[in-house]
Amino acid sequence: MHPSLRIGAIAGVLVFGSAQAVETPAPSSAPKNIIYMIGDGMGPAYTTAYRYYQAGQAGSPVTPTVFDQLLVGLASTYPDDDTYVTDSAASATALASGVKSYNGAIGVDRRETPVEGVLAKARRAGWATGVVATSQINHATPAGFVAHVASRRMYDAIAQQYVNARIADNSMLDLMLGGGQKYFSRDPGGLAEQLAEQGYQQIWALEEMDKLTRLPAMGLVAEVGMPYALDSDAPHRLAQMTDKALSLLSEPEGGFFLMVEGSQIDWCGHGNDIACAMAEMHDFALAIERAKAFVDAHPETLLVITADHSTGGLTLGAEGTYAWKPEVVAQVHRSANALTDALMAGGAEALAQSWQAHVDFALSEEELAGLKQALGRGEKALQSAVLNVINRRSVTGWTTGGHTAVDVPVMAYGTGAEAFVGYQDNTEIPKRMMALMGW
Amino acid sequence: MHPSLRIGAIAGVLVFGSAQAVETPAPSSAPKNIIYMIGDGMGPAYTTAYRYYQAGQAGSPVTPTVFDQLLVGLASTYPDDDTYVTDSAASATALASGVKSYNGAIGVDRRETPVEGVLAKARRAGWATGVVATSQINHATPAGFVAHVASRRMYDAIAQQYVNARIADNSMLDLMLGGGQKYFSRDPGGLAEQLAEQGYQQIWALEEMDKLTRLPAMGLVAEVGMPYALDSDAPHRLAQMTDKALSLLSEPEGGFFLMVEGSQIDWCGHGNDIACAMAEMHDFALAIERAKAFVDAHPETLLVITADHSTGGLTLGAEGTYAWKPEVVAQVHRSANALTDALMAGGAEALAQSWQAHVDFALSEEELAGLKQALGRGEKALQSAVLNVINRRSVTGWTTGGHTAVDVPVMAYGTGAEAFVGYQDNTEIPKRMMALMGW
Repeated sequence: MHPSLRIGAIAGVLVFGSAQAVETPAPSSAPKNIIYMIGDGMGPAYTTAYRYYQAGQAGSPVTPTVFDQLLVGLASTYPDDDTYVTDSAASATALASGVKSYNGAIGVDRRETPVEGVLAKARRAGWATGVVATSQINHATPAGFVAHVASRRMYDAIAQQYVNARIADNSMLDLMLGGGQKYFSRDPGGLAEQLAEQGYQQIWALEEMDKLTRLPAMGLVAEVGMPYALDSDAPHRLAQMTDKALSLLSEPEGGFFLMVEGSQIDWCGHGNDIACAMAEMHDFALAIERAKAFVDAHPETLLVITADHSTGGLTLGAEGTYAWKPEVVAQVHRSANALTDALMAGGAEALAQSWQAHVDFALSEEELAGLKQALGRGEKALQSAVLNVINRRSVTGWTTGGHTAVDVPVMAYGTGAEAFVGYQDNTEIPKRMMALMGW
Repeated sequence: MHPSLRIGAIAGVLVFGSAQAVETPAPSSAPKNIIYMIGDGMGPAYTTAYRYYQAGQAGSPVTPTVFDQLLVGLASTYPDDDTYVTDSAASATALASGVKSYNGAIGVDRRETPVEGVLAKARRAGWATGVVATSQINHATPAGFVAHVASRRMYDAIAQQYVNARIADNSMLDLMLGGGQKYFSRDPGGLAEQLAEQGYQQIWALEEMDKLTRLPAMGLVAEVGMPYALDSDAPHRLAQMTDKALSLLSEPEGGFFLMVEGSQIDWCGHGNDIACAMAEMHDFALAIERAKAFVDAHPETLLVITADHSTGGLTLGAEGTYAWKPEVVAQVHRSANALTDALMAGGAEALAQSWQAHVDFALSEEELAGLKQALGRGEKALQSAVLNVINRRSVTGWTTGGHTAVDVPVMAYGTGAEAFVGYQDNTEIPKRMMALMGW
């Protein structure tokens, strides 16, 4: 624990410096609900970028975002090996259970022994439970809260555990919303049918959301992951699912635990696609605003937000230029994936027009010639050239298609939020939740 | 101001969430001394890297650093233009006076009008004042606290203001420790002589530090900047100067304001030289430990630590590899500058031996061949090749020789520290100091 910030909610005393103890009364009660939100890949460059993207998009002065409003500290993310760079599985396990493990581990320690996480403990305490993600619902981050398998690649085993895991004769999850139809077969005897037999309301498209009216419920609204926000007809799909989750989970009297993942911030980061990443950040920010409004209306709730790691080695400014240009990022209305598909479909002759159908700045002659050349070399070369134009124009830097070790932001709000002020290892986050709850 | 964290020291109430007000008593008093420490270029990747570098060097588990112990939040650093990426001058002006200005501005606003900073206000209140840096003492960061000129390049004008600036008939500075002999001529009538006539004790080498026994005092211990910590006989020179400054400034009864800059973290970052940067971080960490110990002994002191921006687009992990290798960084015992000089001096034949005189890992045959080739192309090519070996071996990424816009860490300790919890713009830091003081 942070040696100089003894935490008000635990110790009853918030201490800055050894000599000045600012006495605070113990909180009147532990939280009655916990909302735990994870921006996958959302390192500090992403929360910074989002602030300036908002200003650049609106052409307005810089104003604090919801991330800024709720920021209380930073968390380290290193896994239980000598790499210092975590993957989403080890980090999800750490964030769920407080136990560091190896990259790839889902809810198991380094010896592959299952470790119980905060969602299961909430279930044990009789709380309603739910997970929401824009990835397949059995992807690493949500899986780390629900399942126990040796490898994140064991998607079928994870889905099976979502269906079959029990805590004291109760199913583990009352609610799952996200992608992943592929892993929950609707064939006779398949996992979807098993869930229906357990009484789950089911939907298979985002537009059917209103049909979910009570728990248990599930919505698997994409075959695998949902479309990128930037390419989607429903760019605020995470905010929409978070609304539904809060409405369903808060109905029972006994409290709830909800995990919400902004899954695809990370995917855009792996693609070094800044416009894609900012659209995902926006959906995540809107989801957080929904959660914050819920806390305002139900102040006995704890809201904690963090990231599992940072992705792509994103930097704002690059190659010696002292500038970042979010207004350029805001002019790009498709992910590099989708933009490349559109350019390929249109062909070399129509390239300038195809570009302008999706991007608000015109290509220079040099850029146009470069993209045409790349198109001739195939889709992969073209996508790389598309990203180069956007990254160079916006002065966005990237160092990797993987993850980096930089500490990630921690935000907290509501009952017990003061327990998360300052630096903490990612394993401390669930430990502090459990300490608040006496679990 | 942070909308959900109303600040205990100002409002008497520390609020997390709109509904739970954790009542805190108003602090018994405003701080009687302020120590303000700035790690130039020290973005969040640097404080993260230093934690793992410490572990990698010792071959021990990860433990929190002094940065971790004191962390309370993050600060944005954008300047007063549309670039979002600040230089050290605009940021020093913001951190000193609470006023955003253009890149290059030293203590002036966008119309080049002087703005009074927290050091001058401390002086006005009768406090002793000092600045300490490992750069020339009239470099951008310290200059932003003392001088008012249109451009950071006006080194002579800045030095002249150090000597001549007055607040109510008092000189602005009681103490200056750092480099910069070049700008304070010892010729008859020169600035050094003028300072001597004003009663300043003077030293011109770090080894003479004991000769400084009372205020006013100055030590200009290098022609321009001091040698890199990694190349220095006195690698802990900032800690040493900080000790001296605290000892001299705390002698008078009336309180003191001390600005300490870890100047060369930034310079190593501009060079994309991770071993150089980590040695500077270590000296800065030791200086902070001295300041922290002072606060423990004199708890009426406020210690605030931050950075002016991040440099180099540093990332821990690069090129798709899920690892960072601080143990490799710890094996490098010279800056890339000095290492290149040594390799050039030794020549191609002795290259492997010259390398091993300064680096604890042996070059592969491929690396050796590459360095020999580069040596043939001259010093610049060789230095770039040297950096490539170190960065590739340690999996360190960089995107620029300049700065980036990512938010920077904020640490605080002692009386009034709670005023700095959460997200804040860099201009808020001096404003909050002034609010604490009623200045």
